[in-house]
Order: sequence, then structure tokens, then C-alpha cells
Amino acid sequence: MRKIVLSTMLALAVALFALPALAEGPVKTMPGDITLVQARVVLDAALKKAVETKVPVNIAVVDAGGNLKAFYRQEDAFLGSIDISIKKAVTARYFNMSTRTLGAASVPGQPLYGIEASNDGLILFAGGVLLVDKNNVIVGAIGVSGGSVDEDEVIAKAGAAALLK
Amino acid sequence: MRKIVLSTMLALAVALFALPALAEGPVKTMPGDITLVQARVVLDAALKKAVETKVPVNIAVVDAGGNLKAFYRQEDAFLGSIDISIKKAVTARYFNMSTRTLGAASVPGQPLYGIEASNDGLILFAGGVLLVDKNNVIVGAIGVSGGSVDEDEVIAKAGAAALLK
Amino acid sequence: MRKIVLSTMLALAVALFALPALAEGPVKTMPGDITLVQARVVLDAALKKAVETKVPVNIAVVDAGGNLKAFYRQEDAFLGSIDISIKKAVTARYFNMSTRTLGAASVPGQPLYGIEASNDGLILFAGGVLLVDKNNVIVGAIGVSGGSVDEDEVIAKAGAAALLK
Amino acid sequence: MRKIVLSTMLALAVALFALPALAEGPVKTMPGDITLVQARVVLDAALKKAVETKVPVNIAVVDAGGNLKAFYRQEDAFLGSIDISIKKAVTARYFNMSTRTLGAASVPGQPLYGIEASNDGLILFAGGVLLVDKNNVIVGAIGVSGGSVDEDEVIAKAGAAALLK
Repeated sequence: MRKIVLSTMLALAVALFALPALAEGPVKTMPGDITLVQARVVLDAALKKAVETKVPVNIAVVDAGGNLKAFYRQEDAFLGSIDISIKKAVTARYFNMSTRTLGAASVPGQPLYGIEASNDGLILFAGGVLLVDKNNVIVGAIGVSGGSVDEDEVIAKAGAAALLK
Repeated sequence: MRKIVLSTMLALAVALFALPALAEGPVKTMPGDITLVQARVVLDAALKKAVETKVPVNIAVVDAGGNLKAFYRQEDAFLGSIDISIKKAVTARYFNMSTRTLGAASVPGQPLYGIEASNDGLILFAGGVLLVDKNNVIVGAIGVSGGSVDEDEVIAKAGAAALLK
Repeated sequence: MRKIVLSTMLALAVALFALPALAEGPVKTMPGDITLVQARVVLDAALKKAVETKVPVNIAVVDAGGNLKAFYRQEDAFLGSIDISIKKAVTARYFNMSTRTLGAASVPGQPLYGIEASNDGLILFAGGVLLVDKNNVIVGAIGVSGGSVDEDEVIAKAGAAALLK
Repeated sequence: MRKIVLSTMLALAVALFALPALAEGPVKTMPGDITLVQARVVLDAALKKAVETKVPVNIAVVDAGGNLKAFYRQEDAFLGSIDISIKKAVTARYFNMSTRTLGAASVPGQPLYGIEASNDGLILFAGGVLLVDKNNVIVGAIGVSGGSVDEDEVIAKAGAAALLK
């Protein structure tokens, strides 16, 4: 764990030295949050998996604050899944767990039954997965929608795994 | 009960004498409604319990009108629980019972099944508790979200109890 | 500027070492984002100024992701200003400038006329101010509503200034 | 013009022959609509221009149906511009003209004054531009937000131009 902390410090140090030395205003992006370069690596890995499994999907990536960072929709992917993929990513980050895990606690008879009435609509089936970087920091989430929920989750996990390579 | 009624009358009398004798406009706040000072006492007591139980939470206090009075979010508390904590407090006050009690009447097969579709979304699991003052008047509610629903309710009750000290 | 960067690194290093050495899961809060302790310092300073100026207000603090962190409503503050104070804070952070500055660019004849139709409603008059920490990083925003827009902004600035002490 | 029509017919013919001969269901995507490959070409060209002009932006691409196809947010781009960039693209496609052109007709005293109250919010300043393919068919729109409206439009036009190369 100490190794991870040290690694995090080094990464942040690099990020900070990369700041413009003569910036006129304050720093606008929380150092360490997911970058567009990282988000595209995640999207590309998920897209590759989607093509392999022949499941046309929508793929959304949100940052640590739950705000949309990047998005792709493949041909033939459901239009109704644009919103679902984004909500899956938001849901995963909002509760720091996969939508599969949250969903299991939200069915009738379980403690969180009815939670989807909050936050302007949550998605409680599989396909939303946290994005954790190499420093073990949650930097956002990925949401995939278009296939079966199991297919969606496989694709989302492929995206999330790419952040650790 | 007579004792409580007398006590309420006294409290209201004090509140009314405290009104500015030469106020230019009408009185804007319902005499006896929760004050910010009281709301902070509630928040602080709930926060103390949250720290003791090591459960990072969102804590919301609404007044007798069901409107937000004060709110705290601890580090690491779910972002998705901002809305849930507020909705728990609102739900408790809107129906003058804990969200646990209302939830039990709202599961499939029970009389209020589907009630969460009203009021732009209610929350029907534990963690929303009424705030009753020393005069036995409901002055609002507290909603806590971030841990298990049982943990949330323990923290909410600790907040509510502080109003009676 | 180098001094600020070094100072930021030190602050982050302290924050990171403060992480639990044996945490079981990933880090959940972006290191460096506003803490509840800081948010309360901001609220208290704004509240003090509101009391001094005898303007009852709503005060909202959001974090770097634009999510609600803490909130107070004083007695006699407009109920309709709960939402406005939160939207002022969100608006300031969403565009990294005060709502006064954004508003000036959004009146008829100016380039951003009509921008309030986005983001489920922005507030384009004074009272929303960025929160910048000692390391020159934007860590959120404060929104104040209840008095004249000039009064609101004075109170918001008093809150923001407390973060630099 | 005849040349364009012939070219369109050829393109559609190619697209149609490419359909799976034994597809089990009906064709799901309008032949000729923007593809993800095209959307990424548009995003990359806009991103290149944004980097050149040092304006951090949000870039959204919608298809001919006005539905989100792809999206990028650069570091330091306004969070409030996520929604604005998408709404700019939607607005341009909904009215088949640039948001600059529509905006000019929507200021006080002009015929479309107040149009932004429709469609859950339109954006009426520059930065939304139509995407027209080599066959002179509108296949969607691009919306850019983050800089001045003139900067946004330059970036959007660079994205749109890439579709014709």
C-alpha cells in the first residue's frame, strides 16, 4: 500500500510540474482526475471488445465528479441506450460500485429497493463499472449499453482494464 | 399531555414576545420552526455519530415546510447520496413518519406500492427520521445516506435526539 | 508560481499520507478537493458577514465536480433562494468565473445570450463566486442568495476569502 | 448538382450491397447516416484545432436524427459546456442551420424571439455547425463549447470540414 501511495505522489508530482509555469488563473482541473487521453484508451478498449463480441453498444465515460468525459455510439446500437450508458457510468461513480452490485441491493425485499427514484433516474443492472487508475484512485466510471447486461458488463470491464495497462 | 401543551404555549409566547415590536413587514418565518442554530446542532450530533461508526455520509435537514435548511457531505460519502439524503428528509416530513415505516407499507403487495413515483421521487428505505422539538412539535426531518440503511438510521436518530437535549 | 506548485505538492503529499494505510478499496475522493472542514469554514465566514449586514440568506458550497458539499439557510431567508444559491455555486464552477462575470456576457446583444437555457437552468446574476485554495487550485464554488445581488456577492466573497486564511 | 445526385446514388448503392444478405432482422441504421468512424474523424479534426488555438473545449457530434453519436471533453474545458456543446449540435440539426444563424433570428425584436424555451432548451449562439457529407447530405451536426463563441465556431467548422476530405 505504501508503494501505491508513493506511486500516486510521483504521478501527481509529474502532473503538477506539467502545469503551465506562467498560468494566469488558478488550476481548473483537479490534478489526478481522468484525462481525455485516458478516456479514449478506455473507449478504444471497450470498442475493440464490442467489435469482437459483435454487440453494437453505446459507451460512456464520466470523470471523478460524475461528469461526462467521452462517449461513442456504434452503428446499430440502440438510441435508447445513449441515456442508459451515461446513467450506468454516473450510477457506478455515484455509489462507488458496479451497477450490478448496486442493483442486487435494490430489488424488492432488499434494503435499497426504490433507489432508482433518486438522482433523476439511476440504472440498476449490469454494465456500469468503476474506473480505477494505477494509483488505486477512482477517477471515474464507464457505462456500456446495447447488448445483454452480461455482454455490456464484459465490454465495460475490458474498458476499465485498459486503464491499468 | 396537558404538560406538553402548556410547555408549547409558553415556548410560543416567548417566541412571539421576541418578535420586533416595530417590524416594518409581516413576520416571515413560522414561529417555532427549526432554526439554523438547531439544524446545526442536529447536523453536528449526526456527524459525530458518523465519525464514531466510520460511515461517511450525506446529512440533510429540512424544516417543517419540507424545505432544505442545512446539509453536510463528508469526504468519501457517495455523490449519489446527496439527493437520497435530501429526499429521505423530505419523505419523512411529507408523510410524518420515518422512511422505514413508510417503506414497509410501499413494497409490492402492500397498500402504498408505487408511492415513490409521486413528489418527484420519494425514498422508501431507512435513514429519514422526523425532528420533534422539546414542545413535541414536528419541526422538520433529517435524512442520512451513505452507509447501510441501518447505519444511516442510527446516525439520523442521533441527530434527531440532539434536538431534545 | 513554482512556489505555489511546490506548496501544492506538499499539501497533496500530506493528504496522501493521511490515507488509511490498510484501506481495502480504492481511494474514493480526489485528493485536494474541498473538505467538509473547509466548506464549514467558508459557510461560517459567509454567515458572519450575513449577520453583520443583516441580510438573511441561503449559502451553498459545491466541490470541484460541482456537487453539493454543504448548505445553510438562515431564518427569514427566501425559500425560493434555496435553489438559486445552489445554482449560483454550480454556475460559477461550471464556467470557472463568477456569476456576475458570466451574466454580463449573457444579456441581450452579448455573445452568450440565452445560455441560461442550458444545464437545467443557470443563474446569471451576482452571488456565485469560485473557491480557490491556498495552492491556487479551484476546489469548488459558493453561491449566496437572499439579499440584493450586490449584498449576496459581498457575503459570497467573505466566504471565499476564508479559504485563503 | 446532377454529379452530386449520381454520387449519392452510388454511395447508397455501395452501402446497400454491404448489408448482410441473410440478415435476420430489418436494417437498423439509416443507410448513409454518420458512422462512428466519421464522427471520430470530425472529433479529431476539431480537437486538433482546439489544441492549436489553445482553447479547451467540449465537442459533441450528433447524427441525422439529432441523437448523440460521440463526445470528447478536454482537460480544463468548462463543465457547464458539456450540455451546451450537445445542445449546440442538436440545435443546429433540429433547424438545419448553424446556431449563429438561428441565434440572429431569435434576439428580442426578431421573429424567433423566445425559441430557446422549446425542445428542453436550445442554444442560440455560435458553435453549432451542420455536418454535410461528400454527397451533400446532412448527416448530423457538431457542437463546440469552451472558448469565445467565435473560437468555438472555428473549431466546429474545422471538424465539419474534415468530413469532406
